[in-house]
Amino acid sequence: MQAAQYIGNKSFRVVESQAISPGDDEVRLNVGYVGICGTDMHIYHGVMDTRVNPPHTIGHEISGTIAEIGKNVAGYEIGERVVVRPLDWCGECPACDAGHSHVCQNLKFMGIDTPGAFQNSWTVKSRTLHKLPANVSLQQGALIEPLSVACHDVARSRLTAGEKAVVIGGGPIGQLVALVAKSVGAEVIISEPNESRRDFSNKFAIPTVNPIEQDLKDFVDTWTQGKGADVVFEVSGVQPAVDAMVDIASVRGRICMVAIHAQKPQVDLFQFFWKELELLGARVYEHADFDMAIDLVASGSIDLAPFITSVSKLSHISNAFENMDNNPTGMKALVSCAVE
Amino acid sequence: MQAAQYIGNKSFRVVESQAISPGDDEVRLNVGYVGICGTDMHIYHGVMDTRVNPPHTIGHEISGTIAEIGKNVAGYEIGERVVVRPLDWCGECPACDAGHSHVCQNLKFMGIDTPGAFQNSWTVKSRTLHKLPANVSLQQGALIEPLSVACHDVARSRLTAGEKAVVIGGGPIGQLVALVAKSVGAEVIISEPNESRRDFSNKFAIPTVNPIEQDLKDFVDTWTQGKGADVVFEVSGVQPAVDAMVDIASVRGRICMVAIHAQKPQVDLFQFFWKELELLGARVYEHADFDMAIDLVASGSIDLAPFITSVSKLSHISNAFENMDNNPTGMKALVSCAVE
Repeated sequence: MQAAQYIGNKSFRVVESQAISPGDDEVRLNVGYVGICGTDMHIYHGVMDTRVNPPHTIGHEISGTIAEIGKNVAGYEIGERVVVRPLDWCGECPACDAGHSHVCQNLKFMGIDTPGAFQNSWTVKSRTLHKLPANVSLQQGALIEPLSVACHDVARSRLTAGEKAVVIGGGPIGQLVALVAKSVGAEVIISEPNESRRDFSNKFAIPTVNPIEQDLKDFVDTWTQGKGADVVFEVSGVQPAVDAMVDIASVRGRICMVAIHAQKPQVDLFQFFWKELELLGARVYEHADFDMAIDLVASGSIDLAPFITSVSKLSHISNAFENMDNNPTGMKALVSCAVE
Repeated sequence: MQAAQYIGNKSFRVVESQAISPGDDEVRLNVGYVGICGTDMHIYHGVMDTRVNPPHTIGHEISGTIAEIGKNVAGYEIGERVVVRPLDWCGECPACDAGHSHVCQNLKFMGIDTPGAFQNSWTVKSRTLHKLPANVSLQQGALIEPLSVACHDVARSRLTAGEKAVVIGGGPIGQLVALVAKSVGAEVIISEPNESRRDFSNKFAIPTVNPIEQDLKDFVDTWTQGKGADVVFEVSGVQPAVDAMVDIASVRGRICMVAIHAQKPQVDLFQFFWKELELLGARVYEHADFDMAIDLVASGSIDLAPFITSVSKLSHISNAFENMDNNPTGMKALVSCAVE
């Protein structure tokens, strides 16, 4: 079999590798498709080399088919199509003890901290598996992971039907958050300066604002008749968005922090006091978020096909990353990891 | 009758004034005691002159006795002892409509935006009144308002028995927050650099940390066996506290923003994402917070007497403010507003 290895400096190599027999609580998957995540792009750019320690096989947005089953694993059969919730939690820290194993204090993120899915075969703990219904393709299955991020964000925000939400940032996660927000019955708009991303939103009939050309607060004030947004999702990671999120939130509005802010931005904490705002950090996903994501696709509520910008073979993974790097407005590049 | 007027530039004058007959939905109070709040000190320093428009009678931490009753007011009798929840909400904005009239979008704060209580007689809407039980003195009654702030902060934080809370800042509100936190069964410590404030906490058997001499995160890590604080109350308004609050909070910890940050501090939003932290702004109080505050004092759970640093006559209000200004570690100065 073959595995792609990130070897540092925007480079991959594809090497011959050994399939790993599953341990007692594990399964071995024939990998179907693996999506390239924003985090994979960060790794590609070399900014996470200390954490990933190249050469390292990355990739965590995966669909696949069960090829081998460990002896303690029940409820799965060879040939079943599954997706992986790529979290390896310790089960013993205070966060796990409090029921928040997805933000375990010793969490290992599979495909970053441990080997990932850009290979023909991936062996994982069975507790990470979710079954794919028959009407969800393996290609769409590779997008269940990012859709689960969006489900988690919406769950954290406690968004309900009839509420009005603003998503700041129309990249893949922002678009998915908007779709999930719509699926729970909320009214949602996306604030995004990039035209091609706004065009993408419009395919799903999600209204957009270009915050460079139009004052977002004025727009939201008019849209909400002076109330402000019930929920704001900050999915951009930039200072102007941090300023906007407090300005456009209603009294008692909830702001869901999805973006990764590498710098410490200035935050108008006075407005948090004055309007009794709530800021809710949201990271990865829980079991129920994967269930919800799969249901949304299986039921036809959300069609993930338009998100798939390209599908490359594993042997062309370098090109796939290079293309994403040169096309930052692309949504989701998939790598087909079946044996070629 | 007499009324004190703030006339700008750290100055008051006491003038002859007319008692105002209550309107149909109002009562007129003979004012008992009025506490000097941190906000009153800000007004005294001239930084809120545009808002208060001197000459203006301020004061909003008040106890008193009912002297006259408007014709539509039911449930009150002349001579009853009451405290005032000094909020004047519009009842018509989206915030009021959503049940959050205490953070009404058109809120007038009585004693700042409208005339206040530093006078012999104060006429207020009856909907602002809460009755004082017989065993709560008028002096302690004047502290029900700041205690209600603390009750509101603890309610917003969803603090429960057995949880561990850190209060950053040991001024009057911080001390009251710690006492309310203790009253709901939480374990609580105060972080405060000022020795006399730490000594004050120790009177109530609340452990303290001097964050200048001891690393607060190390202390909390040891105290919580590596979990971090379930709840952090930020009551100081300074950048180091904003840094500390995210560092010491547990995974999924709640941070209650009580302080008024006039500047926009830098906030480590990455930690909000990483630990799924929650930031909850908390402003003033709701009806239930006043009820809880009165119950805590009436039941003997909290003794407010140690908070009373001084009691001055209305004719000496200038001295009372000057003394507070020169003694920033004093807890609560009261002004006796009964006719002299």
